[in-house]
Amino acid sequence: MSGQPPHPALLIPGPIEFDDAVLQSMSHYSESHVGQPFVNTFGEVLSMLRKLFQTSDPASQPFVISGSGTLGWDQVAANLVEPGDEALVLHTGYFADSFADCLETYGVKATQLKAPIGDRPQLDEVEKALNEKMYKLLTVTHVDTSTGVLSEIKALSELVQRVSPDTLLIVDGVCSVGCEEIKFDDWKLDVVLTASQKAIGCPAGLSILMVSGRAIETFKARKTRPTSYFGSWKNWLPIMQNYEGKKASYFATPSPQLIRALHTSLTQILSRPLDQRFAEHKAASQKIKKAVIDLGLKQLASKPENQANGMTAIYLPEGITPPDILPSLMKKGVIFAGGLHKDIAAKYIRLGHMGVSVTDPTRPDIDKAIKVLKEGLTEVGYKA
Amino acid sequence: MSGQPPHPALLIPGPIEFDDAVLQSMSHYSESHVGQPFVNTFGEVLSMLRKLFQTSDPASQPFVISGSGTLGWDQVAANLVEPGDEALVLHTGYFADSFADCLETYGVKATQLKAPIGDRPQLDEVEKALNEKMYKLLTVTHVDTSTGVLSEIKALSELVQRVSPDTLLIVDGVCSVGCEEIKFDDWKLDVVLTASQKAIGCPAGLSILMVSGRAIETFKARKTRPTSYFGSWKNWLPIMQNYEGKKASYFATPSPQLIRALHTSLTQILSRPLDQRFAEHKAASQKIKKAVIDLGLKQLASKPENQANGMTAIYLPEGITPPDILPSLMKKGVIFAGGLHKDIAAKYIRLGHMGVSVTDPTRPDIDKAIKVLKEGLTEVGYKA
Repeated sequence: MSGQPPHPALLIPGPIEFDDAVLQSMSHYSESHVGQPFVNTFGEVLSMLRKLFQTSDPASQPFVISGSGTLGWDQVAANLVEPGDEALVLHTGYFADSFADCLETYGVKATQLKAPIGDRPQLDEVEKALNEKMYKLLTVTHVDTSTGVLSEIKALSELVQRVSPDTLLIVDGVCSVGCEEIKFDDWKLDVVLTASQKAIGCPAGLSILMVSGRAIETFKARKTRPTSYFGSWKNWLPIMQNYEGKKASYFATPSPQLIRALHTSLTQILSRPLDQRFAEHKAASQKIKKAVIDLGLKQLASKPENQANGMTAIYLPEGITPPDILPSLMKKGVIFAGGLHKDIAAKYIRLGHMGVSVTDPTRPDIDKAIKVLKEGLTEVGYKA
Repeated sequence: MSGQPPHPALLIPGPIEFDDAVLQSMSHYSESHVGQPFVNTFGEVLSMLRKLFQTSDPASQPFVISGSGTLGWDQVAANLVEPGDEALVLHTGYFADSFADCLETYGVKATQLKAPIGDRPQLDEVEKALNEKMYKLLTVTHVDTSTGVLSEIKALSELVQRVSPDTLLIVDGVCSVGCEEIKFDDWKLDVVLTASQKAIGCPAGLSILMVSGRAIETFKARKTRPTSYFGSWKNWLPIMQNYEGKKASYFATPSPQLIRALHTSLTQILSRPLDQRFAEHKAASQKIKKAVIDLGLKQLASKPENQANGMTAIYLPEGITPPDILPSLMKKGVIFAGGLHKDIAAKYIRLGHMGVSVTDPTRPDIDKAIKVLKEGLTEVGYKA
């Protein structure tokens, strides 16, 4: 962190702490969005995303567009479904409600399959729902940032293949791409959407998607035009293909600085085996989860198999609310996040453990987070 | 430019050259999008935008959302009109076609009023069109980046007030905000939309809008829900109001680094009188336009009164195309842009003169551009 002034470690579930070299890329001198140096960089970013998502199928299509992760929902809703289509939305927290709201905005009927807070819809429930109706899409939040609940993407995919193979499988990977294993081809995923500022380790401002050849064919076969302009793949598909072919092309001006930073972070990520990266996130997560148990606290995610590896949502002891403790944790050097699930927001806090905070051995972030959490709780009178 | 490595001066009509301090803000250490330091910064950005747009009406509403300038069109189309509504689109180049296409995407009927290349629709033609039908919106590109044609916003507004006062006046100010005079209140504008990477002088990645109280009321009175999710003011209005009130709020994650950079550039812009800034852009533009005339060349913008102050589109001498000369101009240290208006793209080049290239007296950019253009033309055998 030598290049950065002293500051509390940002350990919320995104934005995360960024590497020095990534932040330096953010201040790259100005360059033309259609000049060859930038076009080459953008092209390499798209090719590297194929590796990050573990897809070697040339029909897979990456998209990188200025926006936040939310724009990924709009892209799905505006390009892959048409008004009147049906979507099944698996609910594991706040973000399923929002994704459903987005789909409804575009005239799609979104049916939510909910689970108790801290759990996920069970496979037999999903199977029952898929048998009741033909859904054009099934959406699932890989890790819901509001609860830290992890969904089982591989098993879900096998279920969809078996029960409703024409249904497109859409994964919201905003809080999972870069820290949870995702095998785009092997798991037969149709869309994985994410954002730059979480485990990918690049500042916020980019909506990033990987789309299957099958989903692109679905898009091309639509009867009505896409229902967004800025998010339209009709506008962006030729641009992304040209950029990856190192050919200048223009629809809307991308952000050269953000793309440079993404190039730096992807280069760093891909310089080591992805499996090692996922194992490191799992190990850091286990360390934190053990500390939470040792403190006598509970997680929102109720079972070991549904607990995310890049974040932990922790119930506070009875009578303690986030404002009682977050400022003191920050003073001690670590920024935690408050609750986000509206029903219980005052009862829990969230800790992100993604990216350089986990993978850079010179950073003390994880141990420090555990230490300050213990101290902070002691100060407000809690005894484990 | 001491902080930046040597590079050719980027004098395309956006992205422009950026100030060192702005680029340094891009590499700000990671901070929470709901933490007070960032919330304060975002709030100040919104307040500063009021000054930049010269609005003191508290009902005016600024928006800053991750995306490109194009997203501003989607915001207008998704929030201010409903399917079946009519819009009159004044055409001065490429970007009117695109704005019309965007409106049609959202089910709005867009009627284009065109002018010969290099000119703008005349006021009497606009009056005639407005008398024929009730248009909910009139859109005008303040400066069309494909042609360098400047529209007459104040006179247009007076015309709309007189002939069709219920029509909302929408100004695409992507290539004008920060270098052309805009008086949001005095001129009774309803929306001015822009992007960060041109005369505002902040790297690309932000869609920036100022919306009148009247337009906000129109939005609130709509019968159908907004037809975008990511671009919905229903989602963003409370967020922007909270940020400006220095209160943390969440819909989608903004880009702290881009907002920091925008804060730096707006602080720089507002540290001097705006009139002086506009006068400097006018003076630099006059210098360039005089050099173009002295070289015996013509501009696309055909009359002094319709020529932009932040860019110049220049017809090349007969027989010379952009690829014949652009690489040599870049080798001499200045990046010009090729043509963009599809009918004549091979016949002209474009030069941007906005932001620090104009206002920073230590930068040689403008004189250098004139010098290398002369040299480059001589090298390909042209004699003035």
